[in-house]
Amino acid sequence: MISVEDALDHLFALARPVATELCPLTEAAGRVLAAPITAKLTQPPFPASSMDGYALNSVEADMHAQFVVIGEAAAGHGFDGRVGAGQAVRIFTGAPVPEGADCVVIQEEVERRGKLITLLTEDTSKSNIRPAGQDFSLGDQMKAPRVLTPSDIALAASMNHAELCVYKRPVVALVSTGDELVQPGETPADGQIIASNTYGLKALLEAHGAEARILPIARDNRSSLETVFSLCEGADLIVTIGGASVGDHDIVADVAESMGLDQSFYKVAMRPGKPLMAGQMGASVMIGLPGNPVSAMVCGHVFLLPFLRAMTGLEAAPAERFSATLTEPLPANGPREHYMRARVTKGQICAESRQDSALLSVLASANALLIRPPHDSARALGETVDYIRL
Amino acid sequence: MISVEDALDHLFALARPVATELCPLTEAAGRVLAAPITAKLTQPPFPASSMDGYALNSVEADMHAQFVVIGEAAAGHGFDGRVGAGQAVRIFTGAPVPEGADCVVIQEEVERRGKLITLLTEDTSKSNIRPAGQDFSLGDQMKAPRVLTPSDIALAASMNHAELCVYKRPVVALVSTGDELVQPGETPADGQIIASNTYGLKALLEAHGAEARILPIARDNRSSLETVFSLCEGADLIVTIGGASVGDHDIVADVAESMGLDQSFYKVAMRPGKPLMAGQMGASVMIGLPGNPVSAMVCGHVFLLPFLRAMTGLEAAPAERFSATLTEPLPANGPREHYMRARVTKGQICAESRQDSALLSVLASANALLIRPPHDSARALGETVDYIRL
Repeated sequence: MISVEDALDHLFALARPVATELCPLTEAAGRVLAAPITAKLTQPPFPASSMDGYALNSVEADMHAQFVVIGEAAAGHGFDGRVGAGQAVRIFTGAPVPEGADCVVIQEEVERRGKLITLLTEDTSKSNIRPAGQDFSLGDQMKAPRVLTPSDIALAASMNHAELCVYKRPVVALVSTGDELVQPGETPADGQIIASNTYGLKALLEAHGAEARILPIARDNRSSLETVFSLCEGADLIVTIGGASVGDHDIVADVAESMGLDQSFYKVAMRPGKPLMAGQMGASVMIGLPGNPVSAMVCGHVFLLPFLRAMTGLEAAPAERFSATLTEPLPANGPREHYMRARVTKGQICAESRQDSALLSVLASANALLIRPPHDSARALGETVDYIRL
Repeated sequence: MISVEDALDHLFALARPVATELCPLTEAAGRVLAAPITAKLTQPPFPASSMDGYALNSVEADMHAQFVVIGEAAAGHGFDGRVGAGQAVRIFTGAPVPEGADCVVIQEEVERRGKLITLLTEDTSKSNIRPAGQDFSLGDQMKAPRVLTPSDIALAASMNHAELCVYKRPVVALVSTGDELVQPGETPADGQIIASNTYGLKALLEAHGAEARILPIARDNRSSLETVFSLCEGADLIVTIGGASVGDHDIVADVAESMGLDQSFYKVAMRPGKPLMAGQMGASVMIGLPGNPVSAMVCGHVFLLPFLRAMTGLEAAPAERFSATLTEPLPANGPREHYMRARVTKGQICAESRQDSALLSVLASANALLIRPPHDSARALGETVDYIRL
């Protein structure tokens, strides 16, 4: 058995970035930017008014000074001429500031009669002008790789990009194994249960940028497994669930090896999730997860999501950890790293009382995995522990 | 001007839940469950072995006791007979425990010769059996409404549901207004800039369950606005961006009112984002956001996402707040609630130095909005402040 950290290192060594593609801006949120975005223009492209008011020269801005309004500048419609001595231009938010003006006096501080305005202020310490390039300049870059947020999309738009170069969605083939499984909506016979792992994992992986395909259930015999493995061709990652233990019916490793799996590791010192294997298998990477529903989902968070990130050029790093204080004590931990289902509320964390790895109802009510290092000593109420978000 | 809290209350009063629809389980993650899911079966449906080993009767489990192995129970293939005195059944993880047996001795604690096993333990305090219904029972419910997580999807699968009743995605029409705007990819003329708000807001709203449609840019004249408003028919929510201020070219409110807008409020005491309006407009709700890019995105987080939640039957509540400690002091705040762009790292928060509401580059590098209440006094390093996540 190896540690979770070592298992992740083995996985990262197997990760190859997928290809890139052009993606319309409207579909790029959540995708991983593959090449820096270079601003095609300067923003604002011109000094722009940030208020509605009058553009004039601040050296003339004395209390009760008067100006002749010689024209108007609106957003999208600049004033062509120059603002001379004793002159002002009516200006609106977003409009280019005309030449000769260096401040905008807001309309509330001006009295207007016909073409004449009188200032009711002499304070022009705030120019109400956004200088050209205040946000960014032609050639400035948004760095890659990064997971594109809605704010990034807005910024990319304003840099005048209608499509972005992103990593392709890694294709993940999800294979449940077991004679006891039927698909949701079918009627289970005696001794059978419903396949749930592939559905939960598909949702998890797709929320993090993968394209996940649920394959037919592989039965506990060589030919069924071989058939389903052959259907995985073209997948960047093949994930099997179940059949990875040492029972007489656990033949996933055997069959995978006969089909070319170069096993990188097997068994990880963690709870839940011990029987876990991974390796290169032809052009794909294969990861075998344990069959208990909670174990499979926990391994999804601990191994699959970081692997997915590494496949899209992001930093090869474990799931992000946060910390919170315990609202109930915890007993000492055994030799395996334990990922306890827990609830976090406002910086406080409490492990669920039932930790059996088959309890999906407990997992669904949890929002965190509380991490106990191997041989962690008993923890008291109020101590700080690490967790990852579900 | 009204407070952010009052504005939200007005908005929630306008929110009507959208209709529901059936959605395949594979597409339901992230959607809002509209009706409780009732378990169609008990899970596990039978007492199931949680280990590979031998099923027998624990009263006979003495050290070195011997048992005849009378058959096998594998996952999906139960043993039909009954385990009598002096008998055991070979059993694998997930298999139904046969009648007459009440514990599974793991294979590592058994010596087997032919059909005979000898126990190397007498400890059966751990039965290694998952009782029927340990996870849930026929008729148990997953409550609605809730945003369906990957774990929920796995639980719904194991309750044997292939499709779920969810709220429809609210349809949001996004309308940018302004003569100065061109679409990304176009070539701006003098005095023009790129429309970015609709792209950022579409990404934000779709990440939270809406179907967002970007409409043609409305120009600063009545007929253009009327045309674009008429294209919004069928939208649950119409969001305009810009043109909501009091400048001569800000005619959104006028045109919307002439087309039936029953204005609920106008102007909110917040920074950025003061010019904000909302009301009922025919069968749709109309929300008018300010045109500065950062203002529009901040209002998206503060108003649109909570409104979206209320439209899908979720609790009408402001954006979730978290708290963190300041790494730099902050000056006193003015009369408006201030949503400062900030960065949070491991429970510590720092406001960005540039807070102008036109700076998308600053918004894109922030991951939080630090909330200053109206008239908040100056804050020292180490004090705790509230924020919402970006």
